[in-house]
Amino acid sequence: LISKLPDVGTTIFTVMSQLAASYNAVNLGQGFPDFPMDSQLTDLVNKAMKNGFNQYAHTSGFMPLREKVAEKAAKLYQANINADTQITITPGGTYAIYTAITTVLQPGDEVIVFEPAYDSYVPNIVINGAVPVFIPLRYPSYSIPWEEVKQKVSPKTRMIIINSPHNPTGSVLSADDMQQLQDVTRDTDIFIVSDEVYEHLIFDNIRHESVLRYPELLERSFVCFSFGKTYHCTGWKLGYCISSPALMAEFRKVHQFNSFSSNTPVQVALAEFLQYEEAYLSLGQFLQHKRDYFLQLMEPTGFKPLPSHGSYFQCFSYGHMTDMPDRDFAIKLTKEAGVATIPVSAFYRSNGDHKVLRFCFAKKASTLETAAKRLAKAA
Amino acid sequence: LISKLPDVGTTIFTVMSQLAASYNAVNLGQGFPDFPMDSQLTDLVNKAMKNGFNQYAHTSGFMPLREKVAEKAAKLYQANINADTQITITPGGTYAIYTAITTVLQPGDEVIVFEPAYDSYVPNIVINGAVPVFIPLRYPSYSIPWEEVKQKVSPKTRMIIINSPHNPTGSVLSADDMQQLQDVTRDTDIFIVSDEVYEHLIFDNIRHESVLRYPELLERSFVCFSFGKTYHCTGWKLGYCISSPALMAEFRKVHQFNSFSSNTPVQVALAEFLQYEEAYLSLGQFLQHKRDYFLQLMEPTGFKPLPSHGSYFQCFSYGHMTDMPDRDFAIKLTKEAGVATIPVSAFYRSNGDHKVLRFCFAKKASTLETAAKRLAKAA
Ligand SMILES: CSCCC(=O)C(=O)O
Ligand SMILES: CSCCC(=O)C(=O)O
Repeated sequence: LISKLPDVGTTIFTVMSQLAASYNAVNLGQGFPDFPMDSQLTDLVNKAMKNGFNQYAHTSGFMPLREKVAEKAAKLYQANINADTQITITPGGTYAIYTAITTVLQPGDEVIVFEPAYDSYVPNIVINGAVPVFIPLRYPSYSIPWEEVKQKVSPKTRMIIINSPHNPTGSVLSADDMQQLQDVTRDTDIFIVSDEVYEHLIFDNIRHESVLRYPELLERSFVCFSFGKTYHCTGWKLGYCISSPALMAEFRKVHQFNSFSSNTPVQVALAEFLQYEEAYLSLGQFLQHKRDYFLQLMEPTGFKPLPSHGSYFQCFSYGHMTDMPDRDFAIKLTKEAGVATIPVSAFYRSNGDHKVLRFCFAKKASTLETAAKRLAKAA
Repeated sequence: LISKLPDVGTTIFTVMSQLAASYNAVNLGQGFPDFPMDSQLTDLVNKAMKNGFNQYAHTSGFMPLREKVAEKAAKLYQANINADTQITITPGGTYAIYTAITTVLQPGDEVIVFEPAYDSYVPNIVINGAVPVFIPLRYPSYSIPWEEVKQKVSPKTRMIIINSPHNPTGSVLSADDMQQLQDVTRDTDIFIVSDEVYEHLIFDNIRHESVLRYPELLERSFVCFSFGKTYHCTGWKLGYCISSPALMAEFRKVHQFNSFSSNTPVQVALAEFLQYEEAYLSLGQFLQHKRDYFLQLMEPTGFKPLPSHGSYFQCFSYGHMTDMPDRDFAIKLTKEAGVATIPVSAFYRSNGDHKVLRFCFAKKASTLETAAKRLAKAA
């Protein structure tokens, strides 16, 4: 078998979660909460199953859920989204991104990817025979260097992938970034994949600049969301994609023959639960407190925080402490200090070792306390 | 946007389910049961959620579930399967098939597809730039013409897709078929995708010839299964793929960046539920009774049954009643007689109108009775 993905190993999230388990380390690696989710939502899933919602949902998603998603988009982002033609429910946000990328890319197409980047984007591009064109985000603000984007756009550029709030750095795109994106893509046939799975995990009173706010951009975009990240149930694997009717028609052709449809009881439950706006409106504050508490706990450790305004994640640089490569250092910390993190070089194709580790702070206070105490001792 | 799937419309299952809903027809189209699933299994999902199993499972699947699957494969098929390296849990059987096909196929590769074929195979091939080579099953037994297979195998043949019990016809492969498959593929680099989602839905004391029984075949195969079909919960979207360690390593590279992982609470529940062997061992008998009852009910209608030894489905020919094309006739029956079916030509690329309709008999007795009564009146 000729590998379609010769350069791919086991994803870093699996590697570090397994290492954390082997060494009984506090797992601040993979991005998932360790506190309980809302029991009202699990009750609704149970109710849906008991009420017999156990057979195939519509391939594009349970319509009442799509309608609630459209209402939410109108309310939060003043977007006018048609539930019938513009929304598809998917088995997870990662799947939505994969399906969007596969819908568009032909062999030889170029895709602009900002590094560091969530580690699924590049394999998703490569498996379609397309070519990633890497642009490093400015260190340490992790902002987009638009002049370089303009230089790198070529007649072969078919897609730009953006992600805000950003994994792994917590940087967020501004209204000015969105303006730049419009300028760069106007009058081109460049498509956009906008990974917005952390839409509600945004701090410091910053407004989430969803592509849904920009009708001109939405015409060429696939905007990908995650219920798992929003409702503290990453293992439920439910997300969705919003696009223009024309692009969504093509997305659905791929989706209906990839997974065909998504888990029905979870969809039925969320269709009811989405009415509780407080659940997602309060999320930014809730996690901002966690970030702030974690920053405070980390002060004695000597790790230097980089700015993070969103997502589950806080990056720290440690180059002043050791010049070990970040992957080695992450493994050492897991084994010897008992704290698992993610080395940020894993989000770069190559040459990305800035001696930065990513910590997931979506954890109980006691988990964060234990981690910080262990790190203080190890430093 | 240049369509990656220019020839694809909305899948026939969605078309007919929507038409059934609009016309309030009895829906014997899409393959799903209308009777309740086992409440013990829904209770186990609820328990898993309450116990906090709501975050990411391992990308290859919850290990206790993989272990149960391996035990089952040993017991039923005398297969020696390693849960760690040979099994991946997926968000559905359709997804497992898609991912297997995407793992292997490169642009220009040829794939032998037997028609009629489940309607996802061909788009899965085409989206990878590969080329389907169609071989019609012998009508009306729907058996494989092995002489023709040998003629059609070329140096470009990279894959053969088999499916037993067969959707839409209910035909099943014999030990002799498996022997032929070994002969055809021996000393080639042809891979096999074996769609066995109906493994337990097999009647008339016929033994299911799983590829898992044939170690030589398994070396080159991706064998795809569905929990949804086995446990009457098609909407839960959980399945799995079994392969050789070498092929599974490549499958997982694609899977980890397609959906990454599958619904955790459902996996945890099934890991416990798989111990109740009766649930799947009794399934063939249970559905055989339904098939037999349905055949009896259909006698007065004038529809002529074709042989079906497995799956959810029973095909009937109607060419002696009208020469309407099967798609038109299926639409007419839905609108005028109030019974929705699937035209079997939808399982052919072209030229496949044998005037055959597929009926799903995995339904309550009363549903089957209503359908037959309506059809008798219409005929
Ligand atoms: C899909 S596993 C990774 C989860 C996640 O988003 C992350 O840790 O970055
Ligand atoms: C995935 S929708 C189709 C369900 C099914 O297997 C069928 O009806 O053939």
